[in-house]
Amino acid sequence: MALRLSCAVMERTLVELLAAKRDGGALGGAEIRRLITSFTDGTLADYQMAAFLMAVYFRGLDDAETVALTEAMLHSGSVLDLSDVPGTKVDKHSTGGVGDKVSICLAPLVAACGVPVPMVSGRGLGHTGGTLDKLEAIPGFRTDCSATEFARIVREIGTCMIGQTKEIAPADKRIYALRDVTATVESIPLIVASILSKKLAEGIDGLVLDVKVGRGAFMKDEERARQLADKLVRVGTRAGKKVVAVLTRMDAPLGRAVGNANETREALEVLHGLGPGDLVECTMVLGAEMLVLGGRAKDIAEATAKLRRAITSGDAVRVMEKMVEAQGGDASVVSQPAKLEVAREVVEIAAPRDGYVTDVDALAIGLTGVAMGAGRTRADQAVDPAVGLEIDAKPGDAVKSGQTVARVFVRSRSAADAIVPRVEAAFAYGDDRPAARPLVVDRITM
Amino acid sequence: MALRLSCAVMERTLVELLAAKRDGGALGGAEIRRLITSFTDGTLADYQMAAFLMAVYFRGLDDAETVALTEAMLHSGSVLDLSDVPGTKVDKHSTGGVGDKVSICLAPLVAACGVPVPMVSGRGLGHTGGTLDKLEAIPGFRTDCSATEFARIVREIGTCMIGQTKEIAPADKRIYALRDVTATVESIPLIVASILSKKLAEGIDGLVLDVKVGRGAFMKDEERARQLADKLVRVGTRAGKKVVAVLTRMDAPLGRAVGNANETREALEVLHGLGPGDLVECTMVLGAEMLVLGGRAKDIAEATAKLRRAITSGDAVRVMEKMVEAQGGDASVVSQPAKLEVAREVVEIAAPRDGYVTDVDALAIGLTGVAMGAGRTRADQAVDPAVGLEIDAKPGDAVKSGQTVARVFVRSRSAADAIVPRVEAAFAYGDDRPAARPLVVDRITM
Repeated sequence: MALRLSCAVMERTLVELLAAKRDGGALGGAEIRRLITSFTDGTLADYQMAAFLMAVYFRGLDDAETVALTEAMLHSGSVLDLSDVPGTKVDKHSTGGVGDKVSICLAPLVAACGVPVPMVSGRGLGHTGGTLDKLEAIPGFRTDCSATEFARIVREIGTCMIGQTKEIAPADKRIYALRDVTATVESIPLIVASILSKKLAEGIDGLVLDVKVGRGAFMKDEERARQLADKLVRVGTRAGKKVVAVLTRMDAPLGRAVGNANETREALEVLHGLGPGDLVECTMVLGAEMLVLGGRAKDIAEATAKLRRAITSGDAVRVMEKMVEAQGGDASVVSQPAKLEVAREVVEIAAPRDGYVTDVDALAIGLTGVAMGAGRTRADQAVDPAVGLEIDAKPGDAVKSGQTVARVFVRSRSAADAIVPRVEAAFAYGDDRPAARPLVVDRITM
Repeated sequence: MALRLSCAVMERTLVELLAAKRDGGALGGAEIRRLITSFTDGTLADYQMAAFLMAVYFRGLDDAETVALTEAMLHSGSVLDLSDVPGTKVDKHSTGGVGDKVSICLAPLVAACGVPVPMVSGRGLGHTGGTLDKLEAIPGFRTDCSATEFARIVREIGTCMIGQTKEIAPADKRIYALRDVTATVESIPLIVASILSKKLAEGIDGLVLDVKVGRGAFMKDEERARQLADKLVRVGTRAGKKVVAVLTRMDAPLGRAVGNANETREALEVLHGLGPGDLVECTMVLGAEMLVLGGRAKDIAEATAKLRRAITSGDAVRVMEKMVEAQGGDASVVSQPAKLEVAREVVEIAAPRDGYVTDVDALAIGLTGVAMGAGRTRADQAVDPAVGLEIDAKPGDAVKSGQTVARVFVRSRSAADAIVPRVEAAFAYGDDRPAARPLVVDRITM
């Protein structure tokens, strides 16, 4: 203590760094790196990291600190080497919503237009599903490719979709697990660093972010979602990547399918030029941004036209077939999505009155999906790929009393008993058609 | 997650309690108890407690929450049973300062006036010394009496001074250790609960708090010290005890001695009617409050007169002799304080000019004492009882150039080389006598 006082140039101790953040001070890049390397080597204990995370929850991190945290977490593991994949590699990340199966159709579609899409995805947790769980509904599909295999598939086919390996940002993995049990998940700089450290580990050049806002999203509030999107774009750009964020509405489920096999089926339908309008729109908007970032279109209009052609030409379907095959899956499901097994017992939910559907509560639907077994409340749970829901009437649709507004796919009729009332309660009706709410709320760039 | 939403009357999970405190909500008494019992039984991990402590740092705890935390930590261990000691048992706690040896003379003095003083003290850490380290400078003195022995000595002699046993508030001990390494020490409700949980474990009826304020104190700032004193009094009273706090100034060391053997010697001198004025004043002010709380005086004036008589009659010295003997120490040092061994090598610090001493920096002196070996920077270090300092000129004293203002007692002359410049730097001089600063800043009761 005496020495510390007499020697002002000495580096601050780890506890002094916690105190500095607690008091609202900014930490230097080297200090942030020291926190993360100390956490990785065990010098900084879990409880000290937890206190730091709570201090960050209250005090925030400025952009320079968030860049340093992102890069320190990124370099706690290895970065996938895609140096022998030519072109500007672009990925998409969604902050998560109900029925969000966009990645599954987006990656092959964008790859079909010439932009390599190396995609590392996650599993479902809480009320939102996960791309890996949905893809694994394809018989044989493996999401555990090695880094070498991943690079080869991206190079040869244009896209590959795998799970986070243990080499990717291990510090983020440990910090995320701590945040989950210390009430420090909802911190914008921590969310930004967590997302970007994982995405930058893919070896990408550009990133399109789908920041969901609304009842079924992580960010319920538009102001907070906008802050998150702004910070993602600023920090990602400072970290040397091309980054665009699109704010999209997530009050009702995206598309009609909620589950695993049925969501994959719906995503495959988009590649065939089918699929519900909001899902198609979301895919086209994000895909167009990816094409522009990837240098394959000069603007959104040109990009959108290219995406359309990749669908009508069948190129997108062919890329998807090759990718499924390369990852060990049954590629015949791509042209015949109906082959994906969905649970046999179907219970229909009927509209209780004439009028308009005014609301379908995405959060309630998402939680119902979890309760059915399509999702998980703990990371070690398995999901049932075959169960799920189909939303037949979406907000704004006119319905007659008795008309089917949703169907529940379950393993047994008795399993539906607890589910049906919850689906019914997720629907709201009115006499007047509700005002249309555009899917895209805003687009955010530097 | 689904079940949680559908059942609003279910108790909140531990993580939800963390989130509630993080968001500024108040927790119920049962919820606070659950946090502490979960921490004790391992259900709540260290990192979760660390996050909770940081949330409390930012959001505070109201009085009801602080009472609940105090009592939960108190009941994590056992309360000393003093039920067969007649009378109103009163203790004193100081928030810690440099040269603060008041407990050593105060306990026998108050006991001599008929108020039992069961005193559980601590060791030095950081820039402040500890009563146990000072007492152990008395040859043979044991501070590790059992609970039974402690109760017997308090009953027979009127006072006993021991260290914290592992049965006393173990949850506080673990939480304190966490706070120390997570930058969450400086939180008023956490300080209050920590102090009171340990003091209430002594089986006391009343408590006088010496809340130090100033450069050498934990609270540098009068406003914060006052908040701490207010909260200690409010929470202690709600916990069913008679509590008074006195705010006292701690800019310069209290008394003249800083060390272990020499501080004990100075405290013993007070019992003989000697000792420096500020130390005597502090002892009398706190002792008078204790006599009033203990029902042995109707007011401060009567209490002060009784304390004076206990010194002049020799009663206080006799209680001290009996206590030292009962705790295994050489009781002859009580009548002959000079027998306490002080390091032989004495280096004198001279005033560099004529004028007035305007300042003696208590923090600098305290840290110098630690550097000499009189204190410790880590809990597992041993202290040297014989080394220390004597402050011969205090703020307000007129000095001539070359006059001795302090003496350093070291084991070897070479050991003084690093120490002397630090002691010199702790003194400030001026042409004008500085304004006197009264020792007692305020007295706080309900």
